[in-house]
Amino acid sequence: MNDANTIMLAHGGGGRLMNDLIAKLIVPRFANAALGQLKDSAEMNIGAETICFTTDSFVVKPLVFNGGDIGKLAVCGTINDLAVTGARPAALSLSLIIEEGFSMQLLEALLDSTACTAQRAGVPIVTGDTKVVEKGAADGIYINTAGIGVKLEAAEVGFDRICVGDKIVVTGTLGDHGMTILSQREGLEFTTSLESDCAALNGLAELLFDKFGRDIKFMRDPTRGGLAAVLNEVVQHIGLPMELEEAAIPIDRTVQAAADMLGLDVLNIANEGRIVALVDQDIADRFVAICRTHPLGRRAAVIGSVAAGTEPLVEMLTKAGGRRVVQMPYGRELPRIC
Amino acid sequence: MNDANTIMLAHGGGGRLMNDLIAKLIVPRFANAALGQLKDSAEMNIGAETICFTTDSFVVKPLVFNGGDIGKLAVCGTINDLAVTGARPAALSLSLIIEEGFSMQLLEALLDSTACTAQRAGVPIVTGDTKVVEKGAADGIYINTAGIGVKLEAAEVGFDRICVGDKIVVTGTLGDHGMTILSQREGLEFTTSLESDCAALNGLAELLFDKFGRDIKFMRDPTRGGLAAVLNEVVQHIGLPMELEEAAIPIDRTVQAAADMLGLDVLNIANEGRIVALVDQDIADRFVAICRTHPLGRRAAVIGSVAAGTEPLVEMLTKAGGRRVVQMPYGRELPRIC
Repeated sequence: MNDANTIMLAHGGGGRLMNDLIAKLIVPRFANAALGQLKDSAEMNIGAETICFTTDSFVVKPLVFNGGDIGKLAVCGTINDLAVTGARPAALSLSLIIEEGFSMQLLEALLDSTACTAQRAGVPIVTGDTKVVEKGAADGIYINTAGIGVKLEAAEVGFDRICVGDKIVVTGTLGDHGMTILSQREGLEFTTSLESDCAALNGLAELLFDKFGRDIKFMRDPTRGGLAAVLNEVVQHIGLPMELEEAAIPIDRTVQAAADMLGLDVLNIANEGRIVALVDQDIADRFVAICRTHPLGRRAAVIGSVAAGTEPLVEMLTKAGGRRVVQMPYGRELPRIC
Repeated sequence: MNDANTIMLAHGGGGRLMNDLIAKLIVPRFANAALGQLKDSAEMNIGAETICFTTDSFVVKPLVFNGGDIGKLAVCGTINDLAVTGARPAALSLSLIIEEGFSMQLLEALLDSTACTAQRAGVPIVTGDTKVVEKGAADGIYINTAGIGVKLEAAEVGFDRICVGDKIVVTGTLGDHGMTILSQREGLEFTTSLESDCAALNGLAELLFDKFGRDIKFMRDPTRGGLAAVLNEVVQHIGLPMELEEAAIPIDRTVQAAADMLGLDVLNIANEGRIVALVDQDIADRFVAICRTHPLGRRAAVIGSVAAGTEPLVEMLTKAGGRRVVQMPYGRELPRIC
């Protein structure tokens, strides 16, 4: 198989190969202002409102995992894409592709979870679609959600607002979702003590935008490709370097052990209930304090800052006192994580 | 395999079994006003605007067929769901699930077709997602589109507006899309002379709403389950019977021959570029005349009317002078038609 002529798993891995695919194949064909922003959700003006619009298909394997399932993930993922672009989610769509022979009981359980997650997050599912394909033409069930949100007046985020000195904050431990999926798939023995961070972040994000408004320069939820992919995308756009402090990055001990065992870097691992924010340095400590008042932000921390310089690199001061470059992940190792 | 405990292909066929699944499993779990309407797209108020929102996943096989491909279909299908609910499509999302090993050349061709169709229809694709699953975990590529539209002021459609005497109009021949797919799949020899009707109907629909406004009582695009599914859904909602005149229903001769050969009823077959409208009897002839001025409405015709009575049945006066009941299709025969 010739790599250049066929799609590889890494094309969906959230890393360099996927970014290439999107930049070369997708964006030029569909050129328009909203798509060109390449935010987690697209912004459009409809009447007097600024509407945000986003979509994600979910193909996670296994379908049920510690801390969630594909239905919960599909609701949270799309809500989070809206939340981190500064929008209040207004409605979701839900589209199912089901393999013939799929268990009706499991379908009902997944729909229960989907409905429950949407209801708790306060976002109605207003439209949907169901397709069935023959046995062998899918792997159980795939779920697509799209979402519409209304831009919060207080929110103004974008690459162009990021300055030297801005602090990098994460709202919790990193890698929990990805390591839970991977270790469950690999059948590792500590699987039961890992739990996905999968959660709807609209409440936390809106709290933060309400309190800090324009002092929040940028937000993302670090899903496929993890923190490394998000920060590398940012430095590419802003042309400035970033410095991380390894000792400040919150990582659960079991997650770290699992990653070490599988030879993975936690910074490349997917999260489904965390925010990475770039904020004005003057509010960084208060920002972390407010995060910690929220159940989804208990382990928030400042982990680094935007530095002066001309090389768009993410550098990390390691615990051992050295420096290393945190690269954009290639995307190969982590198929079907979300 | 126990029918009641697993998903069958017919659950996605657009017929009785799918309606049951939606009514019993989906709607009760996600109860809200917008979903409860069960229109082709959901309506919501955002600020001063009425926004319509819809989604569809496309799993058509083969991926490329006479008159279109899965990319064109994915754009047209979602545009049409918005158009027939009286909305002007404002933006689409595009989400790909691709099987590992898929041809890059074919992917590019499908993206070209997707982009070209969206551009011609005047609807930008503003957001998207790409997932890759292992070889054998999908059948080539599945595409989801979601769409947002803005309700046209002139449009007011709904089951509750339909009255005795309203005329049933179709904007063109029936069954072309479904018979093209099926005969290509079966390798029938007349395949080459069949062509899908796959087209974006937003231009035609807006023309009609502009001219006839509230005199248009109801619109649908008869996709899975065909005309029979749409009309049976309508009679169930309104509690009135309908009468069709077989001789008035436009059907291409080759489509009819293909359907006869495969033992299918053209009224159950999917269309992807046709509108079924219920209109006030006083404007029906002018409605047809205006349709015929549009390239996608050349073979428009009045095919029946809403009758007085209490039994919600669709009856057809046959060419032979008899009467038969047109039933809700079960959905079994037509997997992966869209």
